[in-house]
Order: sequence, then C-alpha cells, then structure tokens
Amino acid sequence: MIYDVIIIGSGPAGLAAAIYAKRAELSVIVIEKAGISGGQIINTYEVDNYPGIPGISGFDLSTKFREHCDRLETEFITGEVTDFVLEDQLKVITLEDGTKYSAKSVIIATGGVPRHLNVEGENKFSGLGVSYCATCDGAFFKNKSVAVVGGGDVAVEDAIFLARICKQVYVIHRRDEFRASKSISSRLLAMENVTVLWDSVVEMIAGEETVTGIHVSNLKTQENNIYPVSGVFIAVGYIPNSEIYKKVVAVDEAGYIIAGENCETNIPGVYAAGDVRTKDLRQIITAASDGANAITAVEKYLNHLE
Amino acid sequence: MIYDVIIIGSGPAGLAAAIYAKRAELSVIVIEKAGISGGQIINTYEVDNYPGIPGISGFDLSTKFREHCDRLETEFITGEVTDFVLEDQLKVITLEDGTKYSAKSVIIATGGVPRHLNVEGENKFSGLGVSYCATCDGAFFKNKSVAVVGGGDVAVEDAIFLARICKQVYVIHRRDEFRASKSISSRLLAMENVTVLWDSVVEMIAGEETVTGIHVSNLKTQENNIYPVSGVFIAVGYIPNSEIYKKVVAVDEAGYIIAGENCETNIPGVYAAGDVRTKDLRQIITAASDGANAITAVEKYLNHLE
Repeated sequence: MIYDVIIIGSGPAGLAAAIYAKRAELSVIVIEKAGISGGQIINTYEVDNYPGIPGISGFDLSTKFREHCDRLETEFITGEVTDFVLEDQLKVITLEDGTKYSAKSVIIATGGVPRHLNVEGENKFSGLGVSYCATCDGAFFKNKSVAVVGGGDVAVEDAIFLARICKQVYVIHRRDEFRASKSISSRLLAMENVTVLWDSVVEMIAGEETVTGIHVSNLKTQENNIYPVSGVFIAVGYIPNSEIYKKVVAVDEAGYIIAGENCETNIPGVYAAGDVRTKDLRQIITAASDGANAITAVEKYLNHLE
Repeated sequence: MIYDVIIIGSGPAGLAAAIYAKRAELSVIVIEKAGISGGQIINTYEVDNYPGIPGISGFDLSTKFREHCDRLETEFITGEVTDFVLEDQLKVITLEDGTKYSAKSVIIATGGVPRHLNVEGENKFSGLGVSYCATCDGAFFKNKSVAVVGGGDVAVEDAIFLARICKQVYVIHRRDEFRASKSISSRLLAMENVTVLWDSVVEMIAGEETVTGIHVSNLKTQENNIYPVSGVFIAVGYIPNSEIYKKVVAVDEAGYIIAGENCETNIPGVYAAGDVRTKDLRQIITAASDGANAITAVEKYLNHLE
C-alpha cells in the first residue's frame, strides 16, 4: 500500500499532524520508536504553557493528544526507522526489522534531545529541579534561586528571563566571556540579581527529593563552591534527531532540518515538523502548530501530484 | 505606566500571548473589544481539531483559554481601540472613551471575519450547517452532501478536501471558470462526486434545525434549483481586522499585516499574531502558536532595548 502520508515520530508535532491528517481523510500511519506517544513531554513533570490545559503532567497531556488520535482511529506502528530513501516521487521508510513502508509524502517529526552535562544528579533530578527549558519551567521557580549553565544566546536569554522571575540567578560558564551577542550579554551583566561564575563548570547537582544546590568548580583557581539553588537550567545545546534524514534533506550546521513555517524541506513531499526543524521557539504549542501546517502543505502537494 | 507589552485582541492568539507574557513576568494588559474572550471561536458550535481537547464547543474552549489566563492573574481591559500611534519607541493606544495606554511593544491579535454572502439563512444556520472553514468543520459532514461557494484557491482546495470526506460536493461559482490555479482546478473537475454549478449564485440557505438545502440561481439561464445538502462551506474571502493599524504597519493587498512565523512586522516592537497576519493556515492551534512566538519576539526586542 502507498500511503498519502507517513508521520515519523509521535511527539506533539506528529500527533497533531495525525489529527489533521485523519480529519482530512488522508491515508496515514504514525511510526513511533518508543511504543508510547508524547515524545519528550512524557517525562515532563508539569506543563503549564499549553494554552487551555494549565498545570498538567507531561504524561497526562501526551495521553490527551494520543486519545484525540485514537478517537479518529489513527494507526500507530512501533518501530525504529533505520533508512529513508526516495524512489522517484515515492518515499520509502525501512524499520529495524526490515519492514518497508511507502508513501507519497513524509512528515519527519522526530524531535531532538537537549545536550546533557553528564554530571552526578543531572538525570536523578530531571524534572525535579533540573530543566532544559527556561520558557517552559521558569515560572515554577518564582522568587527562588536558580542556576543557568551555558554561555550562548539561549543561555543568556534564559538567564535574563529567569532574573525577572527568580530571586537570584547564577550563570555558570566555562569560558571568561559569553558567546552570546554583546547587547544581551551586557544587559544580563547589568542585572542586580545575577551573578556570573566565569571559567566554571558544574561538578554535581545536589538535592534530596528535589534540587537544593549546585557544586561548581573554577577551572583557573581550582576553587570549589556550593551554591544553594532549587533549579538548574541547562542550556548547552540541543541535538535534533535528524541523522537518518540528512542524506535526503538539507540540514543546517547544528543538524536541524531546514524548513520554514509551512514545514517544507528542500525535497517536495518531505516535511519537517516540531523540534527537528529550524525554528525560533521549541514548545509544545509550536510543535502542535507545525503538525497542522505540515498536513496543510501535504494536502497542497497531493493536490498538485500527477 | 508603560507596559512591557499590550496585547490587542483576546482570541486564541491574544490569550496564548498573555499566558506566555505572564509566565515570563512581563507587565502586560490584554485589550478586548467584546468584553468576552475567545474571538471567533466563541460562536463555534464544535471544535475538534485543537490537539488534546477533542469535541469541545468553541465557547467552552474559549473559557479554558481564559481560565488559563486568569490563573496567571492576567489583566483584561474592555474597550475598542480607535487609534494606534508611535511616539518614538513608545507605542500608544487610544480607546473609544479616550483612555490611552502606552507600551514598549504591542501585539496586534485582532483576528478577522470571513466575508459573508448575506443571503437568507446564512446567519441563522451559522454553526448549524453553514461554515467558513472546511479544515475545521469538514469532518463533521462525513458521507453527507455539501456545497462550497466560491471559485478561488481556497474554495477549490476546500472542495477537494470535502470531496474526500463527503458523499457529494456541489461547487457554486458565479463565473464560468475558477480563479484558482489550473492544476488544482482540473484535479477538482476530475473528481467523480463533484458537480460544479457555473455562473451561479446562492439565493437562500434552507433548513429547519440545521441546513437541509441550498437554493441556487443560474445567472445566464435564470433557472432556479434546490440542492439537498446538509453543509454549506462559504469561501469567498476573509477580512482581517487591520484597519486601524494600516497607517503604522505594512499590510498586503488583502489587508493582512505582513509578518512571518516570529510575528515581527516592519515596525520594531510591533507584532501581529493569529488570523490578522499573513499566513497559510488560520486555525486555533496556529493562532495559539503565534501568541507564544510573538512573546518570544517581544522578549528578544525588550532585551535589546536601550
């Protein structure tokens, strides 16, 4: 069978695409690696910024998205994509067990993962004080002390954002200047409740039930200090899950699949939706919006085929 | 007081922007004309494509969005904006009672209204068979007969979309050829369950509780016919609510404020979010996504001010 569209990935982008595809009566399957839907949000302790559903666990929100798909009788297939090729206009996907699926169009909604520090306490307190998204989780730390790790644009913007919300913000950066642009860097440095720890790395994130402090070591002086914080925001990069698709579609230097709001890649009939594509803001709401936009682009593509 | 950001309009775009602004601890007010939040969706009978909340009335979904804002203690002001000017970097808004509000940035989220046919039955059956959005409501007419009114790209794409879902689609167009592109027009004309009524206009939409038929008159032959349909999709254009803002920000020929995914207009610090901006797909989910993107752009703008 040749499907109208195959959706790879079942995070918010993939599930929203599935909802739009089913309501448009397209023939569609969703391929999910984990055998459970939701992507990154499954492990999110609390989501408070998906408009209309405040204060919900990531797992429960995933379930709501998945149930929406199930109401529309969406077909899900569990498997890891190991190959993706074009055969003329046809898109062919191979799973790890050798099964092949073909479609007129494909939506790559494989997401990505934040780069980890790989220090003690990081995984243990993930969602319990350790966060990789200040926009998502900053509001939970109102009037508390937090640390931001990193020195690029995202880290500095996150620190400014958190300084408005939190009592005290420590910024931990391994160099002696930011990679972020001058103007926002000086803005951050002028903020009263911000302390930058230059030439410093995180040794350990400490806590009991939740985070209580961060152990920081200065690379030049070898000095070690413990800072009392209840949140640690790690902003040292993001790794898009685009490895298998790079040989077919264009990616940027960080590995994001190059696609605009309409999710079109450089290959007709191949779309990228959600965190895996080039975009300013990686959020559940923007990923879900991508899913809708991608299906609209798919429909236009199918309308013009032959 | 000078606000960080003023949001004009309280549809999904404005409310989502408010949620993101409050969580970022920006000083913000939302100005809403109606004294009730939700925008166009307030009058939508059923919304089934906002991911995670299937099968909800537009009013109830609006309420959920508004409650989300209220949890974050968002300040709403009821009033109609009658003037919008720039005073150096400051944005100044005047309401009909003369009150003025100033802000460093403004998000225009004023939406728009679909162009009406202004025929008997149109208002009466709005949401009860009469729809202005095939993507939104098409799935409710599975295996039923429907009419599409219009001849542009949107009308033809809507008709193709509906032909996959519905038993029979009548397309009513006042000219003898489509304005839509050749390739999709011929695709539509090739579909078995589509009948195009050329040179024809709608005289009346008939029904009892819901739509049961459409009265159509042929402009050349003066012949009148009644077609039994349970849905009428009107696709004769959309009027963005941009009148007051046109003198400040650039709009396209149809009146949409020119802005991309990040909602930036040609004026620094002025953003357009939701249906009022140039975009491919006008849906609740894409409007809500705009709200998040606009606040992210506002934050970057504020970070670089001074």
